[in-house]
Amino acid sequence: MPKILIKEQEHKIEVPILLTAVSGKVRIKNRSILNEYGTPVAVRRDGFTLSNYVEWQIGYDVVKKEVEKLAESSLPDTEFIGANGKTKALYELSEYIWYFYKWGIVSREDLENVVTYLNSISSGDLIDNNSELQIDRSHPVPKNINGFGFEYTQVKYPLLVYKFNEYEIVTEIKITEKQYAVGTQPMLYLCFPITELKIESNLIGRSANAKEIAHFEITENNIKVFLEILKMFGILSKNHKYDILQIINTIFKKPK
Amino acid sequence: MPKILIKEQEHKIEVPILLTAVSGKVRIKNRSILNEYGTPVAVRRDGFTLSNYVEWQIGYDVVKKEVEKLAESSLPDTEFIGANGKTKALYELSEYIWYFYKWGIVSREDLENVVTYLNSISSGDLIDNNSELQIDRSHPVPKNINGFGFEYTQVKYPLLVYKFNEYEIVTEIKITEKQYAVGTQPMLYLCFPITELKIESNLIGRSANAKEIAHFEITENNIKVFLEILKMFGILSKNHKYDILQIINTIFKKPK
Repeated sequence: MPKILIKEQEHKIEVPILLTAVSGKVRIKNRSILNEYGTPVAVRRDGFTLSNYVEWQIGYDVVKKEVEKLAESSLPDTEFIGANGKTKALYELSEYIWYFYKWGIVSREDLENVVTYLNSISSGDLIDNNSELQIDRSHPVPKNINGFGFEYTQVKYPLLVYKFNEYEIVTEIKITEKQYAVGTQPMLYLCFPITELKIESNLIGRSANAKEIAHFEITENNIKVFLEILKMFGILSKNHKYDILQIINTIFKKPK
Repeated sequence: MPKILIKEQEHKIEVPILLTAVSGKVRIKNRSILNEYGTPVAVRRDGFTLSNYVEWQIGYDVVKKEVEKLAESSLPDTEFIGANGKTKALYELSEYIWYFYKWGIVSREDLENVVTYLNSISSGDLIDNNSELQIDRSHPVPKNINGFGFEYTQVKYPLLVYKFNEYEIVTEIKITEKQYAVGTQPMLYLCFPITELKIESNLIGRSANAKEIAHFEITENNIKVFLEILKMFGILSKNHKYDILQIINTIFKKPK
């Protein structure tokens, strides 16, 4: 992704959103009915409709050794050690918070409240440890399909949706199996309707141009949503909590 | 993966299984109790135990333009047009069947029976169209987690398990969302205990060597399992059915 645009005077950050990405952390999806699971849209072929939204697997850090990705951060000289022992810089979510803290829109107290909140959450209350949020399998039952005697099971994954009141922004937390270990792995996605995007030529009813980019604006009007997302990241798992506390520390330390 | 070893005289195929792969189509997994969902094992660090098994997302074709993958097929000069319009060669499952057909162990009648069977399955009975095998979402209910008022939903994915009697081999069909479109996508995995692998030094109780390879033997004793898997692939979706029928045609056409 191209770098964010930082408008110091206006206290505004413009995040470029690549509309035509078919892999990566941003996808255009469609929901025909409320609460339905979104499906990816071929925006070059099928164009945009009002039921389209942006699904963004927003990050909060970048490993400094990943030079290409580090170049996308506007704060490559920031530094903290993540829960995985890797040296990281502020990126995306943490980057946005840093600017609004610098601009005095996010206060020291706002961030201290996040620290107090996260320190009040015990290890057993973190989402990946929550016994009500585990992956569940139904008991297998015989099922004949086209002559094959299968055993049929349903594998049930928890999905948490949080709606930010007054905003057209939603977060989805999907809980899946860990890739290389036993246990669950919560993943956080930020979703908003494509009508929230800034673009010169209205998207609805037309198809995307090659590598077309729109912008999502972060301003003092919606930065509170991102502060809430920071809190929400911190309750996903022990490692997430550790990272978020380190990030807030890093924001406090960096000279304005 | 390295190429398969074809032992013409013994009527045997040895499939190399890379034990240390952490991505790709073969993974070593662990199930502590029967019917549990397997979790990946760090075989270099934690070693092998009796409850480990091989999960193999077996393929049946290779797109001829994918030169590196084509080099893994022992039949790169075979050719058919897949349901997606791409020119493909026989690979893995279809490759094994080709040799056992050549050796007279799989008969023309065996393959004609698969064709007759697949032609008898109507479009609505294919697994991706089966109304009882759709992805289901529970109605969202409010759930307060650490002060956040989430909506909680369970997303339920069907899993079909088929046990081949007399064999230690199981197939799992996982039904997930399509990546770039509306609808479901069934994926077939072949699973067998690591004790089925041929290797000079017994695996149980030791850890894997760097890039260690074991072999899975396909012989006249278990080729029927692969013929059944060919049938099973053919009922996953319209495209799978088309591909399998083309593959059998290709096997019939190729001079022995």
